[in-house]
Amino acid sequence: MGALDRRDVVQMDLDDPMARFREAFAIPNDIIYLDGNSLGVLPKATIERMATVISGEWGDGLIRSWTDHDWISMQRRTGDKIAGLIGARPGEVIVADSVSVNIFKLLCAALNLNPERRVILSETGNFPTDVYIIQGLERFLGGRVEARLLSYETVVDAISEDVAVLLMTQVHYKTGRIRNMAEITRRAHEKGVIVIWDLSHSTGSIEVDLNGAKADFAVGCGYKYLNGGPGAPGFLFAAERHIERCEPVLTGWLGHKDPFDFNDIYRPATGIERFLVGSPPILSIAALEAGVDLMLSADMRSCRQKAMALGHLFIRLVEERCGSWDFELACPQDAGERGSQVSFRHAEGYPIMQALIARGVIGDFRAPDLLRFGLAPLYVRYADIFDAVSILAEIMSSGEWKKPEYHRRKTVT
Amino acid sequence: MGALDRRDVVQMDLDDPMARFREAFAIPNDIIYLDGNSLGVLPKATIERMATVISGEWGDGLIRSWTDHDWISMQRRTGDKIAGLIGARPGEVIVADSVSVNIFKLLCAALNLNPERRVILSETGNFPTDVYIIQGLERFLGGRVEARLLSYETVVDAISEDVAVLLMTQVHYKTGRIRNMAEITRRAHEKGVIVIWDLSHSTGSIEVDLNGAKADFAVGCGYKYLNGGPGAPGFLFAAERHIERCEPVLTGWLGHKDPFDFNDIYRPATGIERFLVGSPPILSIAALEAGVDLMLSADMRSCRQKAMALGHLFIRLVEERCGSWDFELACPQDAGERGSQVSFRHAEGYPIMQALIARGVIGDFRAPDLLRFGLAPLYVRYADIFDAVSILAEIMSSGEWKKPEYHRRKTVT
Repeated sequence: MGALDRRDVVQMDLDDPMARFREAFAIPNDIIYLDGNSLGVLPKATIERMATVISGEWGDGLIRSWTDHDWISMQRRTGDKIAGLIGARPGEVIVADSVSVNIFKLLCAALNLNPERRVILSETGNFPTDVYIIQGLERFLGGRVEARLLSYETVVDAISEDVAVLLMTQVHYKTGRIRNMAEITRRAHEKGVIVIWDLSHSTGSIEVDLNGAKADFAVGCGYKYLNGGPGAPGFLFAAERHIERCEPVLTGWLGHKDPFDFNDIYRPATGIERFLVGSPPILSIAALEAGVDLMLSADMRSCRQKAMALGHLFIRLVEERCGSWDFELACPQDAGERGSQVSFRHAEGYPIMQALIARGVIGDFRAPDLLRFGLAPLYVRYADIFDAVSILAEIMSSGEWKKPEYHRRKTVT
Repeated sequence: MGALDRRDVVQMDLDDPMARFREAFAIPNDIIYLDGNSLGVLPKATIERMATVISGEWGDGLIRSWTDHDWISMQRRTGDKIAGLIGARPGEVIVADSVSVNIFKLLCAALNLNPERRVILSETGNFPTDVYIIQGLERFLGGRVEARLLSYETVVDAISEDVAVLLMTQVHYKTGRIRNMAEITRRAHEKGVIVIWDLSHSTGSIEVDLNGAKADFAVGCGYKYLNGGPGAPGFLFAAERHIERCEPVLTGWLGHKDPFDFNDIYRPATGIERFLVGSPPILSIAALEAGVDLMLSADMRSCRQKAMALGHLFIRLVEERCGSWDFELACPQDAGERGSQVSFRHAEGYPIMQALIARGVIGDFRAPDLLRFGLAPLYVRYADIFDAVSILAEIMSSGEWKKPEYHRRKTVT
């Protein structure tokens, strides 16, 4: 098999059954965007939807839109739609708050369901918010909770009968490695452990089957592969069998059984709505719903196939064209073990990524040495991968990355 | 003094130095909007600002906008602006999450600052979320917390040395009655009690002077008088002297000292940013910032003067023109004791409000019998008040409110 040239790759785009989806997005012409795992792109339909929500529903409808445009059901309705992407049933998912706040809610719910146990098990090196929320809860609750944080490699074998709840991420934010949700959930249940799955890097990226895995709880992110807009609200999943037994801790008025009775005694709503807290940011949720609608119009299996092919192509091209510059593959070689992203370690990763960004190839850098590239299959083309790796090779061979301006650290990377 | 006629009232608008602000809002021509205390109206500048944020900053800028358009500082920047409306200093206020979640954060912080005490004191009949959040915390923390909920009239006299924290609302959501913040805070501090003020119905409505009152903590709402859009995020205030001693409980990654180091140990940010949790809903916060900018262009003292005059006019006209129909004033007669709203009790309040709404007079109903009218001085005209009361008189004299369709309850009122 000879080295690929650009014509081969352009042919892949011509043959791609997913190619038509790119037209649904407003993507700038002058960049190659490989950061949809950090912030998804803007769907064209969202522009129109937001104009309607802002000028029509808010501006003209005003307070009446809570009923007339059904703002009051927007969190549940969008949750029901997301359910269809992650193997859940309508009524098991709701959009609310942030991923971090939702992790807090579910950790508290899980502790209440497992009152004889005090250990929260999770992993170091995970996306920090998961670990931090556990640490905050441990500190706040004193002896009631013990945080047990182990390495990626050892945490699953440490599932034991003193663990109340295991918080696991399905797709690792740096390496993209996929955990076996069904197997880990089964092992946890054997020991009486409740599992919370963080789907931030898996929703809309890989096929997720929560109920097939008999999952208990999950959280996920709206602003990555769902293209819901910057800082879009998160969502949470609670298996139907658990919902009525969950005692909310963040007992805000919208989680009340009858919020508009304005009475003095909190009673949780009967369904997934009990996980609601305060008034929801309608503008941000409207954008998320538009992103979810677009995602639902694609077939997750085809998305997954294309993302695997994009990753395979990226890795192959880096091997062929950048082999002499010490890039170390930091994601699984096997596409079946890898989410919709590839990553490479390089000691000069920071300035190399800045040089790429300056040339219009937008990936991101994760400290200390990781170059990360998201491969959202709805809008990334095979030719984008070819061009991105060509530019990477140019940056390395010309020494362009050595320019001083690429070495100055910004706060947000 | 004879009865007012419409010409007198139109003259008040002509003489009103605040009248020009109405032009800054996109208000439908066919309604009289007296519900800005529930959802503020759409500023025209927000329409353009949102188009820029959506198509320019998100669509074109994508992930780069966290730095290039300073999304990362938006919560702090908007908080600093709100500080100017409530007698706080820059660095004491931050926009985040919902009012309900912010109450939870501050209750936990206050309990940590008063570790020897376990009572949370607050009032029944307050906006329910305040009461519910206390009840959820009591249930979750078991013996660590005792909720003590007393009536509006008795709660202040119950401030005692076993109370850890007092949660008070400055302007009551139903009656509009104003609490004396400085006096209550002083009495609480004498007993070693920390006070959290809920400013939901006071921010942008009355002159608030948190530091003048030596306040400890406060929360407030973005979607009422700040015109920040439906469900706009809330904000919280922590006095500078407390911030470094506050241990966050919702320890999300954005409240970390160095969030982009992605390390495994939570350390709180050194300033008010320690109260941040997860990724913020940028679209909703951008709309809030535009609303706050407009509010800042007005003078709070002039706003307050006009709101008092609007309320005085409303009450006088109801007395003059609806005196025979059993409306009972449910807000203080004295404008100095009343926020930017008036309210009346009537046994048939629900169908009367539905009939008003059908005629384009948008107020709201609060169970069991309250008609509530918000008088946002930036856009409500004296003539609006005259016309609203005229329509109310017509509805009562014609018996229009008796139509069956006005008696059917909706979920959201």
